[in-house]
Amino acid sequence: MHSPAAKVSGYIVLMIVQIIFLVLFWLFVRYEKAAMPPALGAEDAGSANEHVSKYPQFQDIQVMIFIGFGFLMTFLRKYGYSATGFTLFMASLVVQWSVLMKGFLHMEGGKISLSLESIIDADIAAAVPLISMGALLGRTTPIQLLCMSIFEVALFAANEYLALNVLSICDCGGSITVHAFGAYFGLAVAMMLRPASDQNEAGKHEGANYTSDILAMIGTTFLWVYWPSFNSVLAAGTGGERAILNTFLSLAAATVTTFVVSALVSHENKLDMVHVQNSTLAGGVAVGTVCNLLLGAHGAVLIGIIAGTVSVLGYRYLTPWLTSNLRLHDTCGVHNLHGMPALISAIASAIYASMASLDDYQSELQDIFPAMVGNNATATKFMGGLGRNASSQAGYQLFGIALTLLIAIGGGILTGTVLKYTSFRNLKKDEQHQDEQYWEVPPLDNKEEYELEKVEELLL
Amino acid sequence: MHSPAAKVSGYIVLMIVQIIFLVLFWLFVRYEKAAMPPALGAEDAGSANEHVSKYPQFQDIQVMIFIGFGFLMTFLRKYGYSATGFTLFMASLVVQWSVLMKGFLHMEGGKISLSLESIIDADIAAAVPLISMGALLGRTTPIQLLCMSIFEVALFAANEYLALNVLSICDCGGSITVHAFGAYFGLAVAMMLRPASDQNEAGKHEGANYTSDILAMIGTTFLWVYWPSFNSVLAAGTGGERAILNTFLSLAAATVTTFVVSALVSHENKLDMVHVQNSTLAGGVAVGTVCNLLLGAHGAVLIGIIAGTVSVLGYRYLTPWLTSNLRLHDTCGVHNLHGMPALISAIASAIYASMASLDDYQSELQDIFPAMVGNNATATKFMGGLGRNASSQAGYQLFGIALTLLIAIGGGILTGTVLKYTSFRNLKKDEQHQDEQYWEVPPLDNKEEYELEKVEELLL
Amino acid sequence: MHSPAAKVSGYIVLMIVQIIFLVLFWLFVRYEKAAMPPALGAEDAGSANEHVSKYPQFQDIQVMIFIGFGFLMTFLRKYGYSATGFTLFMASLVVQWSVLMKGFLHMEGGKISLSLESIIDADIAAAVPLISMGALLGRTTPIQLLCMSIFEVALFAANEYLALNVLSICDCGGSITVHAFGAYFGLAVAMMLRPASDQNEAGKHEGANYTSDILAMIGTTFLWVYWPSFNSVLAAGTGGERAILNTFLSLAAATVTTFVVSALVSHENKLDMVHVQNSTLAGGVAVGTVCNLLLGAHGAVLIGIIAGTVSVLGYRYLTPWLTSNLRLHDTCGVHNLHGMPALISAIASAIYASMASLDDYQSELQDIFPAMVGNNATATKFMGGLGRNASSQAGYQLFGIALTLLIAIGGGILTGTVLKYTSFRNLKKDEQHQDEQYWEVPPLDNKEEYELEKVEELLL
Repeated sequence: MHSPAAKVSGYIVLMIVQIIFLVLFWLFVRYEKAAMPPALGAEDAGSANEHVSKYPQFQDIQVMIFIGFGFLMTFLRKYGYSATGFTLFMASLVVQWSVLMKGFLHMEGGKISLSLESIIDADIAAAVPLISMGALLGRTTPIQLLCMSIFEVALFAANEYLALNVLSICDCGGSITVHAFGAYFGLAVAMMLRPASDQNEAGKHEGANYTSDILAMIGTTFLWVYWPSFNSVLAAGTGGERAILNTFLSLAAATVTTFVVSALVSHENKLDMVHVQNSTLAGGVAVGTVCNLLLGAHGAVLIGIIAGTVSVLGYRYLTPWLTSNLRLHDTCGVHNLHGMPALISAIASAIYASMASLDDYQSELQDIFPAMVGNNATATKFMGGLGRNASSQAGYQLFGIALTLLIAIGGGILTGTVLKYTSFRNLKKDEQHQDEQYWEVPPLDNKEEYELEKVEELLL
Repeated sequence: MHSPAAKVSGYIVLMIVQIIFLVLFWLFVRYEKAAMPPALGAEDAGSANEHVSKYPQFQDIQVMIFIGFGFLMTFLRKYGYSATGFTLFMASLVVQWSVLMKGFLHMEGGKISLSLESIIDADIAAAVPLISMGALLGRTTPIQLLCMSIFEVALFAANEYLALNVLSICDCGGSITVHAFGAYFGLAVAMMLRPASDQNEAGKHEGANYTSDILAMIGTTFLWVYWPSFNSVLAAGTGGERAILNTFLSLAAATVTTFVVSALVSHENKLDMVHVQNSTLAGGVAVGTVCNLLLGAHGAVLIGIIAGTVSVLGYRYLTPWLTSNLRLHDTCGVHNLHGMPALISAIASAIYASMASLDDYQSELQDIFPAMVGNNATATKFMGGLGRNASSQAGYQLFGIALTLLIAIGGGILTGTVLKYTSFRNLKKDEQHQDEQYWEVPPLDNKEEYELEKVEELLL
Repeated sequence: MHSPAAKVSGYIVLMIVQIIFLVLFWLFVRYEKAAMPPALGAEDAGSANEHVSKYPQFQDIQVMIFIGFGFLMTFLRKYGYSATGFTLFMASLVVQWSVLMKGFLHMEGGKISLSLESIIDADIAAAVPLISMGALLGRTTPIQLLCMSIFEVALFAANEYLALNVLSICDCGGSITVHAFGAYFGLAVAMMLRPASDQNEAGKHEGANYTSDILAMIGTTFLWVYWPSFNSVLAAGTGGERAILNTFLSLAAATVTTFVVSALVSHENKLDMVHVQNSTLAGGVAVGTVCNLLLGAHGAVLIGIIAGTVSVLGYRYLTPWLTSNLRLHDTCGVHNLHGMPALISAIASAIYASMASLDDYQSELQDIFPAMVGNNATATKFMGGLGRNASSQAGYQLFGIALTLLIAIGGGILTGTVLKYTSFRNLKKDEQHQDEQYWEVPPLDNKEEYELEKVEELLL
């Protein structure tokens, strides 16, 4: 049924995609002007440095995408090669595709300008299909991931353009456009790929062991420490520092809350590693959309407390319910880490937008809520603008998340349908959640052998 | 004897603490002025960036606290969930508490100013109870850690204020105020919690295995590479670069020395992973207080050699002696990694202070030894100052470490007494050094099962 | 045959080396002027910061050297203590030696100037013997590594001086001077240490297990994400941004290609972790020498595709051939990760140099190809220069790699001869690829015991 030929053709498609990227880069992509040698006599020492001042934050985001996501997913005891390897593969694919896709939406003179900002955007875009992969972890082939990534990132770029450039919503840390989109797209795909109604028991290979749970903490912790960079990298002006401070405090509060709620709702009041690995990060998602606003430290901490609570309760009660009632299987619980916290963030953004005023935001109103420039209260201060008032902006924030959900779920259903009903191979139940289908795995764990040898030596 | 109800009430106390933090943030904490949107017309592009120029170093310190400490403590083979999880939990608790505590000591107009510097200070403060936790690793409940952290960080903030602002000692990398304080506080708590005299044998769950020892190297190595950021982040002027260079060289020399001394004193001249995991870092502690002084490369290297030697000898001879003679159990050997190297640093600071002169430090004397401004030699150059001379400054350095030891040990004894003799639950001998008391642990390591399956397959 | 006394004397030699370093630091090394306190009245706020603006990139490189190399080599299931520990030891030794060696080549007034740049250079130099160690992994004693490092780094510094300062080749990311040098030096040593012709079967301890393969991915991934810092840290002007962009794209393309080629050539079309751990990084090496040139995105992607392909094919076909036909054993396959990709980079540099013109590089020609300044086309624009034309520069690029290979292989043969035929102890076949010879290893993996206990509990 599943011949090697199917695998081979899948990888050949992947090579063709890479070569198409090469051609598109050649045809359309050029270094931005600031990355080109200045004309003789026009040198301006120092400006080069200024231009890449976000490089350290870019590097933090690189670690989040490649190490953070990759290792967070190693919690499955038999799926560690795939978790780290497919993260590397998908991110490498998507960053190229994102440079092209986002570039096409902002071409100048028929060319795409390549800059540090392009690759920051590309890393952020890579987060989207990696979040979706979390929902599907262990249940897709690499070729299904390839297909999903290509389609999802194109839709993501379009939705982000609509939300930020057309609807003019604020979403500094990307909770709406990145986290909600990735989570609900992935869940919609998972819904389409759900097992037949008589195969709903857990896969026999699914589950963590002691070492894999600790390896996953590498991912968790790097995501935790660098999350302020993710949320602040696109903030302008003093919003950058607020984004750092708010994200840091929200994460800290979510973490403390996670420990409390996990112990209170778990069996024998013992802490659950799944909660510690994931819900501690919910504070970073929930503060994302509003991280550059004037939340105050208490606002950030409150959002963190709510996010930690909702996320743990989601893992404890909602996920099992979805699995048993809707057969909707969410391997990493992305609904609890990315989905619901992103909804909290969207709601918070509507609340804070409804209170936004020129008095508070002063010269930065234009950066943060550009559509509010030109309303009755602000008309005399700035040129142009749509003249939206605060409640109207709040409404647009809600419209933004609604539209995102619509596009993500619609796109996910469509993608899932393609993956399920066309010629793609689907993994069978007992092929899931283990590396052996697609990786050379050591035939017998040699470490055991080693131990046995040592036992024998000791006995002699 | 130990009912779930006790656990539940502990976690409820923790939630109450988090909510008290929320209220205090709301009442007292405000963004610093530079993190507020500038008034219309008063925009000053670029200044925002300048203001957060220490952000990359902050991120390095984040990695040290959350990854470095967390993974360094995973060396215990059955305590990896706690090592990584409780590090996340305690650091998240302490950073909030530190913003408040340190804020109360520097309020302006009844408000605490929240800035990047606040959270850099908060991360540094988080190191203090994490060091103490190292001494106690595996022998405390989460609620004991909570209680210890709250009390210790308050004392730490007071002691630091006394040492730096009242005594005017130099302590750029915090070896006196952070490392010595954390280590001796933790040892004093350990002394109070020591086992009855007939239970002094090692706990049956204590010890490393092959994988846990390698996981611990993640912690070691990240602490190693980012230590220059920890030591230099608070240095002013050109002292920043000296702090980087001195810390780097001291670490390198301590590492080489650790390998030599470890091999020379160990059984069969084999290297000991405990030494490599810990004593290699002693160079970072021992150079801490003096890292921004004019040590010269040779000074830094010499300090590293001494620190590496003392630390390995401490692990090899002193720790076992303390355990068997004083029943003082120091799980991670923080006395050898933080305690004694910090004493070395304090002594070095007295020596270098006794040689400090205006001729050498020029315009930076004011930053480094502010109390020396105004003495006979310097009176004509600077306004104000206490007019301390060099030997007097050296005496103050020694006074600073003595006061720190006094407060740390006194506070530790008091805290230990509270933890032992009040209603806190104490772990029994065979409950120690293992996760099962407080964590859901996989009932049987599924990896084994997996291997067994594969063996069976091979046999068929 | 192998007495502890031999070990002891080895470690004593190491201590003597460390003390000689101390003396040389004392005699010759001084802080650079910018790291000294400015004279009273001459303070220039802000310049200190400017001066260490490469500090974040330095920290990225620190992670690459200590974490990246260290963990990449943990893939051997019984050699993890050595992989992480000896990396720490060798890097600590070499950074000191590099400050001295490179310093002696650029002394001013009989003194070596110590600066952030010195330790950036030192970290880069540390990569060289670590690459060589990869070829020899598991087959040398620590004392052999010490001896090799000292000799190799001295030769490396001399070769780099010849290539960059005398031949004036471009080598921004160090593929020629660092990667090719380290790889071929290591292979030459391996050739000299090769087993007798009747002992060519694989060592019984060699090989990965499931956990060690995932630990190695920590190394791979950190090398991947920080490689743009390695390649760009020494780039001047706008070349820095180009180096970042080109390296990023080349890595991404090499990664995608690695997955394709690995699946196509491997047994049952399953992915091979060795390829994923190593060949994904070949894009970073292959773009190294040319990373700051005007490759365009398509140039970078094309180089990545070629590098990924060549590297996987090397692992699949060339390495086994070298082992069985030449008895040349290359444990980590550095020839495929560093050697051949560096040759690709050298060839690419000749091609791009042959097309370089003043029209393209404008004011940066002087930085990138300083010897081309003063030729017919450029004479009127710049003062001085050797007046090389583009094809001549291309020839020098090829001469540069040829000279590097000559010195590396010659030096490696010499070093290998010394290591083999003088009084150094050589590891016997069954002592190789395992930690026990030089490390205290837990007598029985206690984790097993733990599992057994739990099984017993379950049975009761």
